[in-house]
Amino acid sequence: MTRRSFLSLSLAGAASATVRARTPEPARQGLRVDGPKLRQRLEALSVFGRPSGGTFADGVSRVAYSDADVEGRRYVMAEMRAAGLTTRIDAAGNIFGRRAGGEPGLPPVLFGSHIDSVPNGGNFDGDLGVLSSLGTMEALDRAAMRTRHPLEMVVWAAEEGVAFGRGLASSRIVAGDIAPADMNAVWNGLTRADAIRRIGGDPARIMDAVKPKGTYHGYLELHIEQGGTLEQRDLSVGVVEGIVAIHRYEAVVTGFANHAGTTPMPDRQDALIAASHLTIAVREAVTSPPGRHVGTVGHIAVTPNAPNVIPGHVRMTIELRDLSVSTLTRLADDIRRRASEIAQSTKTTIEIKPLSQNPPALATPAVQSAIERVTSTLALKSARLPSGAGHDAQMMAQIAPMGMIFVPSVGGISHSPKELTRWDDCARGADVLLHTVIALDAA
Amino acid sequence: MTRRSFLSLSLAGAASATVRARTPEPARQGLRVDGPKLRQRLEALSVFGRPSGGTFADGVSRVAYSDADVEGRRYVMAEMRAAGLTTRIDAAGNIFGRRAGGEPGLPPVLFGSHIDSVPNGGNFDGDLGVLSSLGTMEALDRAAMRTRHPLEMVVWAAEEGVAFGRGLASSRIVAGDIAPADMNAVWNGLTRADAIRRIGGDPARIMDAVKPKGTYHGYLELHIEQGGTLEQRDLSVGVVEGIVAIHRYEAVVTGFANHAGTTPMPDRQDALIAASHLTIAVREAVTSPPGRHVGTVGHIAVTPNAPNVIPGHVRMTIELRDLSVSTLTRLADDIRRRASEIAQSTKTTIEIKPLSQNPPALATPAVQSAIERVTSTLALKSARLPSGAGHDAQMMAQIAPMGMIFVPSVGGISHSPKELTRWDDCARGADVLLHTVIALDAA
Repeated sequence: MTRRSFLSLSLAGAASATVRARTPEPARQGLRVDGPKLRQRLEALSVFGRPSGGTFADGVSRVAYSDADVEGRRYVMAEMRAAGLTTRIDAAGNIFGRRAGGEPGLPPVLFGSHIDSVPNGGNFDGDLGVLSSLGTMEALDRAAMRTRHPLEMVVWAAEEGVAFGRGLASSRIVAGDIAPADMNAVWNGLTRADAIRRIGGDPARIMDAVKPKGTYHGYLELHIEQGGTLEQRDLSVGVVEGIVAIHRYEAVVTGFANHAGTTPMPDRQDALIAASHLTIAVREAVTSPPGRHVGTVGHIAVTPNAPNVIPGHVRMTIELRDLSVSTLTRLADDIRRRASEIAQSTKTTIEIKPLSQNPPALATPAVQSAIERVTSTLALKSARLPSGAGHDAQMMAQIAPMGMIFVPSVGGISHSPKELTRWDDCARGADVLLHTVIALDAA
Repeated sequence: MTRRSFLSLSLAGAASATVRARTPEPARQGLRVDGPKLRQRLEALSVFGRPSGGTFADGVSRVAYSDADVEGRRYVMAEMRAAGLTTRIDAAGNIFGRRAGGEPGLPPVLFGSHIDSVPNGGNFDGDLGVLSSLGTMEALDRAAMRTRHPLEMVVWAAEEGVAFGRGLASSRIVAGDIAPADMNAVWNGLTRADAIRRIGGDPARIMDAVKPKGTYHGYLELHIEQGGTLEQRDLSVGVVEGIVAIHRYEAVVTGFANHAGTTPMPDRQDALIAASHLTIAVREAVTSPPGRHVGTVGHIAVTPNAPNVIPGHVRMTIELRDLSVSTLTRLADDIRRRASEIAQSTKTTIEIKPLSQNPPALATPAVQSAIERVTSTLALKSARLPSGAGHDAQMMAQIAPMGMIFVPSVGGISHSPKELTRWDDCARGADVLLHTVIALDAA
């Protein structure tokens, strides 16, 4: 099914004839994911990669391909099999669990997330989406509800950009961004082939993991917001409009390294002074037009970086994110203009070079609407918002209609042991996933 | 002889009775260091630590205790012995070369510099002072001039703060800032005892290298300026007023590390934004009052320093230098006030902690006057100026009357292969050293 044909379908109304025939409407609307069970599983999964002697609140280091990752995956697969799903690991190491559908020949509805983490990460990023997917399958089983499409949940491997330095590693493979030679990459002394073998994948058949457009009826992912918007606005659910484009630049500032004691202030060509002005200018450029776009100088490398030497050289990253590529282009132009003035006033040169440009991945409008209707049916307060973070969903958007559901992150904190989503928000998000799966199946 | 008694002497007039008796005044005034020989030796010394395949213009890496340092020292000692000096290496590894004086029991006049370099340094910093000292001895020999005091030239070991991380290492020992346990320090897998043994010192007798006040009649050092003032003002000689005090601080900026994609701009507590404002504030604080004081943020360490994470933590050095400690205190107060405003406006905390405070070392006024009179006699244009860099002279100032002579650095460049002092400026500086030695001997 092409995206166009999906979009042309109405998601309004409710379940399909098949579902309606088996499950009465009021019962279907009362269907819920088992919240206490979801919490128990989040706690159980959290021990794999937990700091020694720590508790749930101490977060997790479950970097992709590590022993903790292998053990966490083993735990989740066992739970999937116990729930009656048919599991398999694809060549890239992604775990799939299938629940049969009622109508032959229809493509599956896919939903899931990941369980790998950044070092010193939290217990909700990824884990919540995976375990809510499992809860969704069980809720349908409890209601003895047969969907039209097969349902598949997925545990994406290596979502965080830690191992081999690039995020969304295995959903990227499914979307086709892979070549056999990529298996030779080395990280921490491990080839990518070895890493994929560690988690049960098959690097020799890596191209088998690639799936064409039309393989899936749709893709859904529940995830924590990783920002503070939902919490600040007292909302239970975010309907993701899309995953922002990321334009990354490197600014190279060249001054002149000289003796910090003998070089009078007016004679200096201090690259760090210029870099400091530029860091502030990036923030000013980003905050001057209204909008939700963000810009960050996150990495800076100073040469020679000694207390007694005037910095001669600075390399720094400038990262800009927004759903709109034209906004990002305007911001970069403004930053370049400001950099040129700074270079002149500091007697330095500043070169701004593009490093990478990730396109935005817009959520399918019909799927956004379906999520919105579900939240309304469940009497949950929601709003549309962009995802500033990357997610496997953005790779899936290349081959299937895609939607994402966000739940609040307390204090907007993520990639930290302090990452927290309240248990009732977890359960509400899982319910929205469950009912959106039902709605997609019906569409 | 205490400093007070030295200062009470008049350096005016000229040579002592002894010198006057042996060398007629016009001949003495015509006395010059052999300029071509000085150049030839600077070029000969430059091969020890020269980059492979390079030329004189490619500078030198003659880090203390390295093979290049050992070989360079061997070359200089051989030249010293060939010039008839009695050489010895003290327990700290400093090389001394003595020329006998005419009056028994008088303390020596000491002069010299160092030949170790920073990595990728130049061929004038230190080398010029050492080889001009040798040229001074030879000029006196050529004139058959017997001084009243013995003369000693010195090649200080480990002046640059590379090995074991602290500069003026071996003149510091002579001035008494040493304990036997310091020999256990480790750098690059080498103990300091091993390092000192490598250059012919005797770490087991390290305390023997310490010399009390009164050991020397005075100390002189010729050095390149390492700044651009003399060249800019078209002066041949700088009469050093003293070596500036150095007050070093660490600023610790604490914000909150968070996701660079999901954290809206108004919610950020970006430690690098605060550090950038502080870096600029240091420059503003330093440049607002008139004076020659300088201030530098040379080192910065950002955590986590990743393109996609808002910096949560920054450590940066703030280094302030001036002859006046009260000026430095006022500057630090101003910087603290500005830091407090920055912390408030950026929602961060900034703690400024003192790291080290090196006191100023003022050149003895009578020695400054003697140098000035010599430059006037030699018809050279000079001016008084502070030394923004540290020198072995500042350690010697603790035990003897001290003076320093600066010659111009082209472009103010030092600690770089581009470091350059014109040959005629080298020779003029050596002549000033020679005649100031004669003047001190007479005082």
